[in-house]
Amino acid sequence: MPPERIITLTTDFGLEDAYVAVMKAVILGIAPGTRLVDISHHVHAQDVNGASYLLYSACRYFPSNTIHLAVVDPGVGTARRAIAVVSAHGFFVGPDNGIFAPALAHQGGLDVSTGSVLHGRAVELANDKYRLGPVSRTFHGRDIFAPAAAHLAAGIALSELGPTVDQLEVGGYGLPVRTLDTVSGRIVHIDHFGNAISNIPAKLVADGSIFGISGRTIRGLAHSYQDAHMVAIVGSNDTVEIAVRDGSAADVLGLHVGDVLTVRSDR
Amino acid sequence: MPPERIITLTTDFGLEDAYVAVMKAVILGIAPGTRLVDISHHVHAQDVNGASYLLYSACRYFPSNTIHLAVVDPGVGTARRAIAVVSAHGFFVGPDNGIFAPALAHQGGLDVSTGSVLHGRAVELANDKYRLGPVSRTFHGRDIFAPAAAHLAAGIALSELGPTVDQLEVGGYGLPVRTLDTVSGRIVHIDHFGNAISNIPAKLVADGSIFGISGRTIRGLAHSYQDAHMVAIVGSNDTVEIAVRDGSAADVLGLHVGDVLTVRSDR
Amino acid sequence: MPPERIITLTTDFGLEDAYVAVMKAVILGIAPGTRLVDISHHVHAQDVNGASYLLYSACRYFPSNTIHLAVVDPGVGTARRAIAVVSAHGFFVGPDNGIFAPALAHQGGLDVSTGSVLHGRAVELANDKYRLGPVSRTFHGRDIFAPAAAHLAAGIALSELGPTVDQLEVGGYGLPVRTLDTVSGRIVHIDHFGNAISNIPAKLVADGSIFGISGRTIRGLAHSYQDAHMVAIVGSNDTVEIAVRDGSAADVLGLHVGDVLTVRSDR
Repeated sequence: MPPERIITLTTDFGLEDAYVAVMKAVILGIAPGTRLVDISHHVHAQDVNGASYLLYSACRYFPSNTIHLAVVDPGVGTARRAIAVVSAHGFFVGPDNGIFAPALAHQGGLDVSTGSVLHGRAVELANDKYRLGPVSRTFHGRDIFAPAAAHLAAGIALSELGPTVDQLEVGGYGLPVRTLDTVSGRIVHIDHFGNAISNIPAKLVADGSIFGISGRTIRGLAHSYQDAHMVAIVGSNDTVEIAVRDGSAADVLGLHVGDVLTVRSDR
Repeated sequence: MPPERIITLTTDFGLEDAYVAVMKAVILGIAPGTRLVDISHHVHAQDVNGASYLLYSACRYFPSNTIHLAVVDPGVGTARRAIAVVSAHGFFVGPDNGIFAPALAHQGGLDVSTGSVLHGRAVELANDKYRLGPVSRTFHGRDIFAPAAAHLAAGIALSELGPTVDQLEVGGYGLPVRTLDTVSGRIVHIDHFGNAISNIPAKLVADGSIFGISGRTIRGLAHSYQDAHMVAIVGSNDTVEIAVRDGSAADVLGLHVGDVLTVRSDR
Repeated sequence: MPPERIITLTTDFGLEDAYVAVMKAVILGIAPGTRLVDISHHVHAQDVNGASYLLYSACRYFPSNTIHLAVVDPGVGTARRAIAVVSAHGFFVGPDNGIFAPALAHQGGLDVSTGSVLHGRAVELANDKYRLGPVSRTFHGRDIFAPAAAHLAAGIALSELGPTVDQLEVGGYGLPVRTLDTVSGRIVHIDHFGNAISNIPAKLVADGSIFGISGRTIRGLAHSYQDAHMVAIVGSNDTVEIAVRDGSAADVLGLHVGDVLTVRSDR
C-alpha cells in the first residue's frame, strides 16, 4: 500500500468555528485515505501575504506529491478565479490571489514580475463535476477548494479540474533589492516568539555585515539567539531575522511586517 | 480494508492543557485505527449552546457512520446522564445536556418541545465494562465519553453501552417564530470573522426581504460579502447571517448571541 | 498490519507559524505511516516546567511504544544536549533541560535529586546520519528532534542515535514535603478553566483534610466542582486542585504557578 497522500490546510478561519472541520469532512468523504496536516488556521483575517509566507516556508519540507490547500479569500463570491497548480514541490489549490506566488516563485515555477507560469501547470477550477453543489456564495473552501484537493488526492488528473491558465495573480510578493554594497529587503513575518523575519536570503549576507532596521544598527551575524540582547541571525528559512534575547523583537524594537531591513558589507 | 472510522471531538478544553490529547490517547488505545478530527476545542467554557451549534453545522458533512464526541459538561460529577445516540447522520457521545439537540432535531430524530427521541436510539452510558476505571469526579471526557466513542469505533453495538432512554434534555435550542409576514429568529453564533449567524433558514426568506437587527435595517439579501458595508446574506449553513465588509459585524454593530433578527417581506 | 506508531508533539511554537507543520512534514517524510497527536503547542514561551507538567500528565495514557517529541528549548544553539530516552511508559525525544524529568521520575526512571537514569536508557542525539543536514542554529525541532523521533518510529534502535548518557538535567521539578501532620506542595499548573493544580497526590490526603492556600482555608475534599463556591478536589491527574464553581480559581483567588498549598489532617 503506498503511503497516504497528504493534504495540508492553511486558512484564516481560526479554530473557534467548525469551518475547518467541515472542509476536512468534505475531503474525507471524497478521499478517505488522505492524511490531513494543518499548517495554520490563525492567519490574520484576509492576510493573503501572511498565508503566502507560511506556505512558502513550509511546503518544501513535504513530499512532492503533497497537496497544499489554502483558503484566505477576501474575494469569495466575486469574479476572482479558483485555481489548482502543480509545481516541482507539490500541488496547490485555492483562490487566484497571489497566495501561492512566493512558493511557486521559489521553485522557479512563476515569474513574479509578470505572473507567467514558467514550469508546471495551472488550471481554473471550472469543472462542476468536482464541486460540492450547489456552490454557496460564502464558503468556497467547502464547496470548491476542498473537493478539488480531495479529487486530486483520490487520483484524478489536474487537467480534469478545468482549463489551463497561463497567468496567475502575484499579489504583494516582493524580492530584496541589491545595490553595489547593500541589500535592502523587508520584514515579511513576525513569528510567535516576536522574531522579525525578512525576505533577505542568507547567501546574500556575509558574517560581518552591518544590519540596519528601524533606526538601529546590528554588527555581525549571531550564532545563537543568546549571543546578544539584539541579534541578526540566519533563521530557519535561510533568511535573516532580527531577534531579542528571551524577548519579542517586535515588541521591544517596535518592528512590523513591511519594515525595511538593510544589510551593508563591513569594509 | 474499509476506510478508518472517524471520531470528531468538540470540547471547551482549549489547547493549552493536555486534556484533549489524553482523550485521544484513550481512544487510540482502544481503537488504534480511528481517524480523529477536531471540530473545535475553543467553545467558550461551559457554553453548551455554542457547542451544539458547531455540531449542528458540521455533522451533516461527515460520513454517516462518524462518531461525534462532545464534552462541554458543566454538570460533570453531578447526576446528569452520560449518553450515546445513533441517528440518521451519525453517532453522538457526550453528556445529556442538550448539546446534541439541534443536530438531532435537524435530522428529525428529536422532538425539541418534549425531548422525545423520534428516530434512532439513545442509551445511557451505564455499562462499567466500557469505562476507564476508576471513574474520576472531574474528567468524564477521559473516563466515560472517550472510551464509549472508541468502543463504538471498534465495532461494539450501541445497546452494549447501556439501557435505552426515550427522553433527552433539549437545552437552550430555539426555532425561529413565523407570523403572517414576519420571521423572528435569533443570533446563535458569532464566527471568527465577526459574522452574526442566525437560526433563520434561507428557505423562509425572500430576496427582497427587509432585515431588522439591533435598531438597524438592511434591505434585500446580498450576493457577496463585498456587496455593501452591511449585508444580510445566506451563510454557509443555509441560514441568514449579518456581515460587515472587511470587518466584524459583531464589533461594528455591537451584535451578540441571543440578539433578535426579524425578516419582513417587502410588499 | 500493526497499528501505526504514535508520535506526540509538545512545543511552545504556537499555531500561527508553520513551525509545527514543518516538523510534521519532516516526520512524515521519514516515517510516512506515523500517527501524529498534538499534546499542546501553547506552552508559554520557554516554559520548560509547564511543558514538563503536560507531558507528565498525558504520557501515561498513551500506548507504551509511543514517542513523545517535545521542543521547549531556550538553549537552542548553545551547548545543551539533545537526547532520546526510553522508559517504562514510552520514548521521549527533545532537549536535555528537565522537560522529561517529571514523566520519567513518575515512572521510577529518574532520580530527581541527582539526575541519574535509574531504568531505561538515555542517549545523546549525536549521530549525524539521523539529522536533517545542515543543522540550523535556530530550529533543532526540525533538524534534530523530529528526525530522531521519526527514525525511532520507523524502527531504528535507540542506541543508533548516539552514545548512552547516565545523567540528565532535572530542571525545576519539585516533590511535596511531608511533616508529621502536614503536606506542603505547590501549584504546578493553571489549566484552561482557571483550576489551580498542585503536585500533592490524592493518596497523601484524607477526605476531611484542611487546605490552606494564599491565606484562605478550605475544609474537606469536594466530590464535584459544583459542591461549593471554592473547592479542593482530586483532579484528573490524581493530585489536589483548587477550583471555583463556574469561574476561574486563578482569577478569583489570585493564584499562580508556584504558590504553596498546605494540607493538614483534621484531628
